[in-house]
Amino acid sequence: MTQDPRLDPAAVQALVAAHLPGLLGVEFVEVGPDRVVGRLRVRPEISTIGGILHGGSIMAFADTLGAVGTVINMPRGGRTNTIESSTKFIAAAPQGTMVVGVAVPLHKGRTTMVWQTTIRREDGRLCAVVSQTQLMLDPPQQGSD
Amino acid sequence: MTQDPRLDPAAVQALVAAHLPGLLGVEFVEVGPDRVVGRLRVRPEISTIGGILHGGSIMAFADTLGAVGTVINMPRGGRTNTIESSTKFIAAAPQGTMVVGVAVPLHKGRTTMVWQTTIRREDGRLCAVVSQTQLMLDPPQQGSD
Amino acid sequence: MTQDPRLDPAAVQALVAAHLPGLLGVEFVEVGPDRVVGRLRVRPEISTIGGILHGGSIMAFADTLGAVGTVINMPRGGRTNTIESSTKFIAAAPQGTMVVGVAVPLHKGRTTMVWQTTIRREDGRLCAVVSQTQLMLDPPQQGSD
Amino acid sequence: MTQDPRLDPAAVQALVAAHLPGLLGVEFVEVGPDRVVGRLRVRPEISTIGGILHGGSIMAFADTLGAVGTVINMPRGGRTNTIESSTKFIAAAPQGTMVVGVAVPLHKGRTTMVWQTTIRREDGRLCAVVSQTQLMLDPPQQGSD
Repeated sequence: MTQDPRLDPAAVQALVAAHLPGLLGVEFVEVGPDRVVGRLRVRPEISTIGGILHGGSIMAFADTLGAVGTVINMPRGGRTNTIESSTKFIAAAPQGTMVVGVAVPLHKGRTTMVWQTTIRREDGRLCAVVSQTQLMLDPPQQGSD
Repeated sequence: MTQDPRLDPAAVQALVAAHLPGLLGVEFVEVGPDRVVGRLRVRPEISTIGGILHGGSIMAFADTLGAVGTVINMPRGGRTNTIESSTKFIAAAPQGTMVVGVAVPLHKGRTTMVWQTTIRREDGRLCAVVSQTQLMLDPPQQGSD
Repeated sequence: MTQDPRLDPAAVQALVAAHLPGLLGVEFVEVGPDRVVGRLRVRPEISTIGGILHGGSIMAFADTLGAVGTVINMPRGGRTNTIESSTKFIAAAPQGTMVVGVAVPLHKGRTTMVWQTTIRREDGRLCAVVSQTQLMLDPPQQGSD
Repeated sequence: MTQDPRLDPAAVQALVAAHLPGLLGVEFVEVGPDRVVGRLRVRPEISTIGGILHGGSIMAFADTLGAVGTVINMPRGGRTNTIESSTKFIAAAPQGTMVVGVAVPLHKGRTTMVWQTTIRREDGRLCAVVSQTQLMLDPPQQGSD
């Protein structure tokens, strides 16, 4: 049904494997125009010295999900920049656990989208809420598919 | 003069080497109570598939500098959590370049601090501005150094 | 059932009538621990010169709803400060129309709460999303009810 | 020297007198392309029931200064929308005092500007820091001056 490789979690994951999401260990679980879900294991190298998931890892995880959500809603070849992002950190996620991020659009406009990502621990406890504004850039004028 | 190892950039870097700042490649240049400076080389693994520094890397870089700045202003053994963070993304930093982050306190209170980090490219162009609120946690009651 | 006057929209409205919410014209519709709803008519004096609801009015409206929501969840006599607030502005609300704000808690902790307010036009169009962190202050030690 | 009425504080104040800035009592002190300064007396009607300047008043005051700063940097007839705004609230300003807001650009781009407003009490104490992203809208195609 979904020939668009942008909707295949494994394809998305392969696409970004050499980049920040791969470095952090983001695992894509669901990729759709109204919901993007990912998981992240809290390994020491993405934690603080205090043994909890680093705030920077949380923001990067969310940014990844929101950006994928935006791209999915654009024409093929479209690109997006995050203009701004704001995060509330609520509870810590200890090393060894897994967190799940669910990104949903608050707004899908012609020039901007706003995505909000909720990150929870496996026990359901809310870790953080991230909302970000994405600017939609025109696809390249030529040469693309 | 500064016996406090928290003020030695190399010591700070060693302390966090096994964690997110080390994974990203954050290099501490200056660590003081009113200014923390770091550098980050834009390697492919912290970039986007578009070849620019990933927004998540930018936020994680800033979060690291602001958290270090907060800890420095606390009693030994004090810890801090980032409560919230907001970022404006302004210009892209291409792969292969270096960015420099300078964090300064906007506010140093008894329970919270607000730090703002300005991230620039080597050519001076502003990439991002991140401001974050840090909650100061009591040091452990006993057993510390 | 609810003797607590803090849960009576008319009583809340009377309480703040001499202050900013009264000046703006905020009308409380529903006041509960998990949902606070208000309305605001877009009058010229809370608009921009362009004839739309002023961004400042939007943020003040949301701040009012979120602060009321926090107070409701605290012991009698408890007070709260907004520590920080972030807003995404999405669509304009023209003069003469009405907007409705619905505030819900994203987090209710012992020391902080996070409330998110969604502001919509009467036609359902999303105008803005505001999320704010409230610090809970101890009630006065004596002399309260 | 400056024929542009947009640079005359009294003219700006007159222009917005019938709107939110007038309702709040914002007084423009200095209006220039790299710095906009205003003052606001903390009257009861822009305060909280606790007798301090309302967070909503603070955000509205800052939004006003940042928007004026953006317009000044645009061609005549240009308009601007605030896309997003984030605020850190730091110290309270009691009723009867005056606060001063100073807005400066962090970024002036072709499509967006980022302005940051610092609000202080007369005694110099920092009350709040607000940073906002402005989208620049094209001036009307015809009929302008």
